[in-house]
Amino acid sequence: MKTERYKRELDHSYTLGATLTFELMKLRPDLAMAVFICSDTQMTESTKELINICKTHDVPVEKNDKAFNILSPKGNCYVIGMFRKEKQQIKDGNHLMFVNPSDAGNMGTILRTATGFGYKDIAIITPAVDVYDPKTVRASMGALFHVRVEYFDTVEEYRKRFENNHRYAFMLTSSRDMEEVKALSPYTLIYGNEATGLPEEYASFCETVIIPHSKEIDSLNLPMAAGISMYKFSRSL
Amino acid sequence: MKTERYKRELDHSYTLGATLTFELMKLRPDLAMAVFICSDTQMTESTKELINICKTHDVPVEKNDKAFNILSPKGNCYVIGMFRKEKQQIKDGNHLMFVNPSDAGNMGTILRTATGFGYKDIAIITPAVDVYDPKTVRASMGALFHVRVEYFDTVEEYRKRFENNHRYAFMLTSSRDMEEVKALSPYTLIYGNEATGLPEEYASFCETVIIPHSKEIDSLNLPMAAGISMYKFSRSL
Repeated sequence: MKTERYKRELDHSYTLGATLTFELMKLRPDLAMAVFICSDTQMTESTKELINICKTHDVPVEKNDKAFNILSPKGNCYVIGMFRKEKQQIKDGNHLMFVNPSDAGNMGTILRTATGFGYKDIAIITPAVDVYDPKTVRASMGALFHVRVEYFDTVEEYRKRFENNHRYAFMLTSSRDMEEVKALSPYTLIYGNEATGLPEEYASFCETVIIPHSKEIDSLNLPMAAGISMYKFSRSL
Repeated sequence: MKTERYKRELDHSYTLGATLTFELMKLRPDLAMAVFICSDTQMTESTKELINICKTHDVPVEKNDKAFNILSPKGNCYVIGMFRKEKQQIKDGNHLMFVNPSDAGNMGTILRTATGFGYKDIAIITPAVDVYDPKTVRASMGALFHVRVEYFDTVEEYRKRFENNHRYAFMLTSSRDMEEVKALSPYTLIYGNEATGLPEEYASFCETVIIPHSKEIDSLNLPMAAGISMYKFSRSL
């Protein structure tokens, strides 16, 4: 199996690490194309178990040191999964929306937290980070395989399809404390870019909300603001 | 001014970046030893302002490209502050406690969030990450200069000094939903290591609590669990 450095244009991506590759094989074996094992790897019970799962699903297992040189040059990874990327569509219900998110690690943390609080449908407005970036896949700790992520070129396109969703936009300019909001379902929680936040125009078609914090910091970081509000909204309905 | 790669044993550390160095000069000019400016730097208004603040506080400003080669080999940083490390003592009141935290970036995110929710006193049980690691300083976005951090060799030492604090330990083995807790002040929120959590013995001298999440993830990540509970406890008293 030929491997190459990950690029957005590829039709496949990689799970770097044994635990993550296990998640792939447990959750989405239908997407798995191959599993690579480094020739240094000790044949532990869990490696044998992984190989067995691959056999069950007819996924080829290869000793392929070249793949490790290309995909994990730091050499702290002994198992890699290669999987097909899937074009997904989000379903009706409560959503999260991220507008122009730019950090791969942050997005992974967000997907993990979203999975923890039961949010399965995630809209992303482009330009944006690629959720199939192996850094995102890794930071999500496999949560990517639990959620549906759909990219939209414009927020209008999203609004047209989900016009019944109540939109709550997290903005530092808002004067509405998140605690005072009685959320109506289905709803969409909306977050801006790490550095620039949401464009002001979002205030014209969303209810704006804020998580109050001391003036000693400029803002909470994006995964934190998203995580705290996901917790709050998932618990108060 | 001689600079060397950061090591825990040094009596000083560094703020890598202009914004962070501004925070140092605004919040703790008493700790600043020097500010280095890369010879590539354009003399913007904000650089001039920084130089003025340094003059006011008698902090030397140097063109020192060697410092950048040593401290920021990636070359994405044009201003560096050098500051004296301070041995701090936490004060009476509500505390956060981290037991054997190991990730420098996580700890920075935690300090930033703690500052946002008004937690100023942070106990760390060793062995643990060094909060003066430039990675932590950077991830904290200057919040390090707002908080007091004190290291303890054992949790017993901490308990002896703060015996009146009500202790709430976040443990995945707990059956007590955080939402049901009516926290008594002063209190201490206690979190374990990123990979291993808290030792079971903590259940014998703490009230254990959990942030419920779906079974699809193993746990929330440490900054997320800490941030969500800081938010919750700071809002419910």
